[in-house]
This record gives sequence, structure tokens and C-alpha cells, in this order.
Amino acid sequence: MRTCPTILKTELLAESGYFQIEALHLQFSNGQQRVYERLRGTGYRSVMLVAMPDPEHVLLVREYAVGVEAKVLGLPKGGAEPDEDYLQAAQRELIEEVGLRAERLTELGELTLAPGHLCHRYSVVLAEDLSPCYLPGDEPEPLDLIRLPLAQIPDLVARGELHEARAIAALFMALGALARRG
Amino acid sequence: MRTCPTILKTELLAESGYFQIEALHLQFSNGQQRVYERLRGTGYRSVMLVAMPDPEHVLLVREYAVGVEAKVLGLPKGGAEPDEDYLQAAQRELIEEVGLRAERLTELGELTLAPGHLCHRYSVVLAEDLSPCYLPGDEPEPLDLIRLPLAQIPDLVARGELHEARAIAALFMALGALARRG
Repeated sequence: MRTCPTILKTELLAESGYFQIEALHLQFSNGQQRVYERLRGTGYRSVMLVAMPDPEHVLLVREYAVGVEAKVLGLPKGGAEPDEDYLQAAQRELIEEVGLRAERLTELGELTLAPGHLCHRYSVVLAEDLSPCYLPGDEPEPLDLIRLPLAQIPDLVARGELHEARAIAALFMALGALARRG
Repeated sequence: MRTCPTILKTELLAESGYFQIEALHLQFSNGQQRVYERLRGTGYRSVMLVAMPDPEHVLLVREYAVGVEAKVLGLPKGGAEPDEDYLQAAQRELIEEVGLRAERLTELGELTLAPGHLCHRYSVVLAEDLSPCYLPGDEPEPLDLIRLPLAQIPDLVARGELHEARAIAALFMALGALARRG
């Protein structure tokens, strides 16, 4: 396997309140040089939650997504705060977004989105043994919550009702973890 | 279900050669106002290919990804050019990136990545009945190509070797389509 290219230079091209765009000047092992742009991450890790109220169901949220200007089905998620580890962040987001807390949290692994252009990483956390708990969150309006049989996920994806890649990938990880558990 | 918020104003905050950052001023149905930022898409649709050299295997590519500064496993992919539909773009990318052409191309559906912040959409295309074909592409170095049994995908994801959400979601769509085909 060829080695990774050398980063000759990194420069900040533009930034806004939320995003920072960087250019990286790269030299590949065959001598070719390219400039690639990427979006710098927020610095802290994000979590995605596969919350299961019972062994056959998962909780999806339906939330307005400005990138596609429509309500979109996905999973509860959020960013870890500076003093939190992933599991603490997962517990807080679950309470704020869903109104539940989990007795059992399991980190299933990490996802990237489009690693050629984005630095973002998500820790996927399986949340089980749920009980009601309330804390006000930072959402502009309460999220629509949907309790869905796990067995219906493939149909929901095939019909185009669940199209968010990071949610589908997180559910795939959870299905795999549950299958290995037996 | 509540209605989608009204977009009061859209403004371009910053741009680079590749990215454009927009701010959208929104008013939710309960009167709350928020400003959300999003990354405008490139304008043309992207395709992701699940290319199967035989009914039990899929072709993955390993490519340097500047967002995570590492080689990353994913699927062949690319953007449709202005005069191409998705299937034409899929065929061209398959030839350029993998050196194969497909007799049979099936569109499986559409994926978003993080629709709260990104406008990007990917059409997932299943490519079958493959035969050798060569066209020079625009990659700085040839991609590493990996022929993987479909049955090994869950393990690859569980071990963290395949972590790109859009690739995992596209493979999940393909596994579903193949299962429905019987």
C-alpha cells in the first residue's frame, strides 16, 4: 500500500460562526501535488444514539433539517461539551431530546461522514433500560419522536423515508451488535 | 405534525473554491426565530456505487481522505457532470475509478449525510455484470481496490475498518435490495 501524502501547508480560507474552511496542500508519494479543501470539525466529538425502549424497538426523531428544507427522520444526537466524555454526552442528549435516561450505555464505535471533505466524527452509543427523565434542551421546538420496530428499518430505507446516512449506518452497527450478542 | 419553519432570509456568509456557507434565518411555527448555517451543495448530484463482481462480493476502494488525514475504505463515487444522468455518471465513475463497466445498473435510492447542515445528496447505484474497461480518471494516484465478501461487512464495521457512514448506508441499501430480490 502507498504511503499517505505529505501535508506541505494548511491555510484557513474562510470561516463563519459555525464552519471553518481549510485548504491543505498535499504531495502524493508519486510526486503529484494537489490542493484539497476540507471543513474543520467543531473540535469536540459528537454522539449518535440508538435508543431502544425494548429489545424490538428503536426511537427515531423527526426534525426540521435546513440543508434539505424538510423534516427528516434521524436519531437523537448532539455534541459533547468540553467536560463530558461520550457516554455522559449521550446520556444528557437522550434526556434533553427524548425525555428518557438509560441505565445501560454501550459505545458501538465511530462513524465518519465524508472524510475526504469533513473532519467530523460521531461516536455511536446504544442506549438500553430506559426510564422517563426530563431536562430542557436547546431545540427550538420539541422533536417528533417515533417508536419503530427494528425489523422495519430496511423497508423504511427502501421507501426513502429514512435517508440520513449517519443514522442508517448507526442502526446497522446496532443491528450487528445485537446479532453478535445473540 | 408541526409545519416546517418559514425561511425569512438567506445570506451567503463565506465561500472558497469548493464550499459555500449560507445562513438561513428561520421562524418556527411557534414563533421562535433561529439562524442556522448550512453548506450549499455543488449543485449537481453525486453517485455512490455498490459494484458487485459476483453475487457474493462487493468492491471497496481505499483512498486518502484529507478530512481525517488517513487512508479510508469506501465505495467508488463521484459527481454527475451537467450533461449526465445518475446512471451515466455511475458508469463513467465505475470505469474511471475501478476499470470496469456494468451491463446492469440499478438505482437503489438517495442518501443525505447530515441534512441539518449539508445540502448534499447521493444517488446509490447497484452495478452488476461487470467487465474490464479502461478510461483515465482524475485521481492523483490509482485507488487501492478491495474485493470483499458481502457477508464480512458487519465485521468490518464492528472492527472500525469501515467507518464512512455514506458507504455503510449504501451497502445496507444494497443488502436490502438483494434480500428482497430473493
